Amino acid sequence: MPSYTRRSECPIAFVLDLFGDRWSLLIVRDLVFKGKRYFHEFEDAGEGIATNILSDRLKLLVSQGILVKARDPEKGTRHIYGLTEKGFDLLPVLLDIIVWSAKHDPETVVSQDYLERATNDREALIKDLRAASQI
Amino acid sequence: MPSYTRRSECPIAFVLDLFGDRWSLLIVRDLVFKGKRYFHEFEDAGEGIATNILSDRLKLLVSQGILVKARDPEKGTRHIYGLTEKGFDLLPVLLDIIVWSAKHDPETVVSQDYLERATNDREALIKDLRAASQI
Repeated sequence: MPSYTRRSECPIAFVLDLFGDRWSLLIVRDLVFKGKRYFHEFEDAGEGIATNILSDRLKLLVSQGILVKARDPEKGTRHIYGLTEKGFDLLPVLLDIIVWSAKHDPETVVSQDYLERATNDREALIKDLRAASQI
Repeated sequence: MPSYTRRSECPIAFVLDLFGDRWSLLIVRDLVFKGKRYFHEFEDAGEGIATNILSDRLKLLVSQGILVKARDPEKGTRHIYGLTEKGFDLLPVLLDIIVWSAKHDPETVVSQDYLERATNDREALIKDLRAASQI
């Protein structure tokens, strides 16, 4: 079973201990923003995660109650991943990260419409993202 | 010069590549929420960062324009660290992380008043935190 070491009772350290490995939050991103559901889809996500690391991170996220792993209703021999409520509650963090990068990183490409929604119409955007990501 | 490797043009991967080492964002936390300014104060922050890692992360954060390093006006032989505008713009991310941990991590201790401000009075809280952290 994958695990992480907690360094303090600080709420920020808690999240960094959980997500600070550079990969876990990208899996959440792929679920929410890219509609990915299957192991092989996360594997192909673009940043080149190694198979064993992906496998470990998926187990960690399931064990922490952020993801659920279920049998694919369309093909019972394979599995599908989805976010729990705890996972969906990360959406404000992800949107703030997008807004920050769009402002401060010249290489980040985010449409003005999306930024506008992430900033001024956040609740509705979150609702749409949740609806589209529900398994 | 410390550096980081960028994996993609994704705004979330950008932040994780920069902060996903578990330490950098805790330095920002110490500046904003704990009033820390000096190297030795970050060193004593509680999570046990090694001196060489702290030194590396401070250089990285300065080189990325998130922190400034200045001579301490009270004692010119030592240095003081502060946040730039780009650094202060991380405050919404930090507040969302605190809100998430308070909701989902049973060991996180955040006062109800603080959570209330972080959720419903965010702009004023950010303004107060900025004013208190200005060097």
